[in-house]
Formats: sequence, structure tokens, C-alpha cells
Amino acid sequence: MAGDARAVSRDLSIGVFDSGIGGLTVLRALMQRLPRERFLYLGDTARLPYGTKTAATVERYALQAVEELTGRGVKALVVACNTACAAALPALQAAHPAIPVIGVIEPGAAAAVAATATGRIAVLATEGTVRGGAYQREILKRMPEARVMAIPATLFVALAEEGWTDGEVAVATARRYLAPLFAAVAEVPDVLVLGCTHFPPLIAAIRQIVGEGVAIVDSAHTTATALEQLLDARQLGRQEGSGAADFLVTDGEERFGRVGPVFLGRDIAPATIERVDL
Amino acid sequence: MAGDARAVSRDLSIGVFDSGIGGLTVLRALMQRLPRERFLYLGDTARLPYGTKTAATVERYALQAVEELTGRGVKALVVACNTACAAALPALQAAHPAIPVIGVIEPGAAAAVAATATGRIAVLATEGTVRGGAYQREILKRMPEARVMAIPATLFVALAEEGWTDGEVAVATARRYLAPLFAAVAEVPDVLVLGCTHFPPLIAAIRQIVGEGVAIVDSAHTTATALEQLLDARQLGRQEGSGAADFLVTDGEERFGRVGPVFLGRDIAPATIERVDL
Repeated sequence: MAGDARAVSRDLSIGVFDSGIGGLTVLRALMQRLPRERFLYLGDTARLPYGTKTAATVERYALQAVEELTGRGVKALVVACNTACAAALPALQAAHPAIPVIGVIEPGAAAAVAATATGRIAVLATEGTVRGGAYQREILKRMPEARVMAIPATLFVALAEEGWTDGEVAVATARRYLAPLFAAVAEVPDVLVLGCTHFPPLIAAIRQIVGEGVAIVDSAHTTATALEQLLDARQLGRQEGSGAADFLVTDGEERFGRVGPVFLGRDIAPATIERVDL
Repeated sequence: MAGDARAVSRDLSIGVFDSGIGGLTVLRALMQRLPRERFLYLGDTARLPYGTKTAATVERYALQAVEELTGRGVKALVVACNTACAAALPALQAAHPAIPVIGVIEPGAAAAVAATATGRIAVLATEGTVRGGAYQREILKRMPEARVMAIPATLFVALAEEGWTDGEVAVATARRYLAPLFAAVAEVPDVLVLGCTHFPPLIAAIRQIVGEGVAIVDSAHTTATALEQLLDARQLGRQEGSGAADFLVTDGEERFGRVGPVFLGRDIAPATIERVDL
């Protein structure tokens, strides 16, 4: 926890932690919203996916990963992985009291509540996130009369990783997960929260099943807004500079550089990717 | 490596190592073939899947896992995970010279060569196994004129783990991976090797795409034959007893007990599952 001892200054990077590669959809939104900031992204690619692991194991892995980021000096931390937020956010905040630590679940829940007219909200997430119930709690805290339906959709993670984000398999998978809920004649949700960072690339296939009348909430953008407000409030935003991102991965630098651009929406230079052992 | 120091005796268990849960298809074949033997299965469920990790990381994880098994005393070791065989079999054999260590790739390659008439052999495996080229080498060593086509099929792992082994998604996935090769009018392979332990539950969907004329080789059964021959040759087979299996997992005992029977073909009693940290 060396980083916690340093003075938190505007000039430091913003740490972004994810189980692997999906969190790059969050980094993409952060870089769009905060173009002057520098980001240090850590993807725990050796131990992904987190979505099918127990909460205790995810918490242990998250603490190790964040220690690596704080040791290098960061002024704020975004936990981009929904599963890690659900399992480890309180532990991460307790371990690093000097640094603001924000997750993606609270901003996603707030956006869902803002978007619903009927109070019927569906959450699509990994097995671990659904089991932990964090989205359900955060939505009900803001809207006690809401009806939240959480759907574990593990296979979407593999589809996004394989780059099969459209076509027959993606649509058939979306149908199997979503049609039971959205093909009903009554009580259909009017909001669908993408509660995993791997899901935004699959949005076209998802839209084909849920139809146009459903608002799809992607917590990446609301998290970017939350981070901007936080930096403003603490006077931690960079006043100038052109922004940049560096990447730490625990395995597979080559694969990260090859698959990452699908999620980040821009190329990743090999020289910006460093392998670390946790 | 405490186990290596003990005398290797008939009464010890046979260790079976896998990245997670798929190796239970191999254990199933071993238990059918060798009903008097006791087995100690270790699934590295905290760190699965191995199929998308680099060879160096898989080797490191495999050495840790096998040390846990040998420390408990085993008379032989089966590496059930194709990816671990491809990345780590020589290192495992070197680290444990007192114990016979066999993998699934050599028996699978031998069975493929025995089954082909045309010499055109397709291998369906994980990204890591395909990249390592072990199947290709083992087949060509036995049949230099063979034409081997290796297809990375990562998504099948997730499908099997999700229990979606038949239906629209499984068939569409099989079509996307296999139709380019098997829908050709000429030079179609006459043998398809299932080079990952997760794939046997998907055999019906695969058969629907490749047709009846293709021999599908599942290395689980040929590995069981190889182990039987090895135990006979070294006079290490148990002469009596009713057989049993115990299970070590690195995470998610509950999930292992719930999903495991899909692969093992029989129930797994919770009392037989122990959590270990590697």
C-alpha cells in the first residue's frame, strides 16, 4: 500500500481495475469523458473470469490487484468489473481510505432508476454478480417499489471474448437468456441493465430480442459521469494534458493487444502493455 | 514433492489433474475401465479456464497443482486437461520422476491415426492447445503423411460449463466452427478429435454438423486404456476393492458438486469435495 502514503495529486493517473478485458468498455467511456486524464488499467487476465468464482476468492484477487495499482501511485480508482464490485468494493475502500474508490454498480443502478417508467427493471450479469445481489439492493435502495429481475448470462462473456458479437450464435444466445422475460405479453421490463462490462459489444443482438421499447443501460457512461463529479468535488482533475492509458496484465500481453481493441474502440500499442505477477 | 519420496504402492490412489471440471469426462472413463482403483481428482477451478492462458502460466499452475497431489501420495498421475498436457507434460514428468505421468494427447493422437482412412484429421481444441501444436506433432510423428487441421473452439468450453449442450445455441456454434471444414465437397476430414475434455457432452450437436461418416475420437477412453496398460506393466493395479473418487478444488465446491455430474455421469457427494489453496 505504498501508494496510499503519497500525497494524492492531480498529476497522478486514475487506476482502473478489471478481471480482464471487458473493463476496457468502461475505460473507453472514461477516456471520452475525461480526455485530459491519464489512466493505468490493470486486467487480471491470468485469473479471469471472475464471474463464476466465489465472492471470497474474488475479494482476495481484487485486493492483490488494487495493491499493485496503488503501489504505482493513483489518485482515484475505478473498479470496472461488476463481479469485483459486488464482491469486493467495501473491502477495497477499507484497504485504501486515502483514495476515492468507485464502482460501476451504483452508477448503473441510479441510471436504471432514472430510466424506468414502470419500475420493472431487468439486470443481465454474471453468475457471481447475480448471486451477490448488489444490483438488486442498489436499485431497491433508490426505488423500493421497483421489481428487479436478475438474469445470469455467463455465456455472453465467452461470446464477447471470442469476438462473436453478432450473427446466429449471438442472437440465439440472447434469445435463450432474454426471450422468457421479454416475450411475455404483460409485465415486461422497460429497462435492461448491462451488468457486466463484456456485454456492450453484444448490444445489437440483445436489442433484436428485447425490442425498441426497452431502455438499455450501460453503466460505463454513468460511471464516467460519477468519476468526473468526484474529481471536480475533490479538485483532483487534470487542468491540461492530452490523456493516455497504460496497461498492466497478469497474462497474455499478445492476446490483450489483439482482442482489447474490440472493447476499447481504439488500437493498443504493444509498448503500453506490461506483464505483472500478482 | 513429499509424495515422490514414498514407495509407490498398489494401494495408493491415482491422481487426476484438470484445470477445472471438464476432466471429469476423463475420470468417468478411468472409473469405468478401472473399477477397483481409487482416484484423487484435483480441479483448479479458481484459475480456469487454462485454454486462453499462455503456456508459461499454465506450466506454473500445473506444477503447483500436481505438487498438491503428489504430496498426498499417488501411484500414477493422469493430466486430464489437454491445455495442461500441451504446455506442461514434460515439466511435470521431470519434476516427478518416480511417478508415471500420462497425458491425454498421445492416446488421442494414436486413436486418431488408427481411425483415419484418408489421413485427413481435424482436431477441435482450445486456443492454447491449438497454438502449442502438440496434437499436430503427435499425429505427424505416427503418420507423417497425415493432413492435420486444428480448430480453436473456445466457446464450446463455456457452452459445456453452462450446461447448454444441445439446442439452438450449441448447434449454431458447432456450425460456425465446423461447417467451413466439413461442408466442403472435397478433402473433408474423416476423423475429428475432441481435443478438450469439455467437448464430449456436445457430441450430438457436433455430429449434426459433421455427419455420420466422420469418426469422432474422444481421448478419454484411449487414455483409460493407456493407464490400464501402464498399471499392468508396472504391477501397480489394485487387485481388489470397490473403487472411489475424492475431489480437491481450488474454488467453488458448491458449483463443482452441482455442475460436475454433467461431466462425470454420476452424483458427487459434498463430503467428497475438499477446498484447497494452491
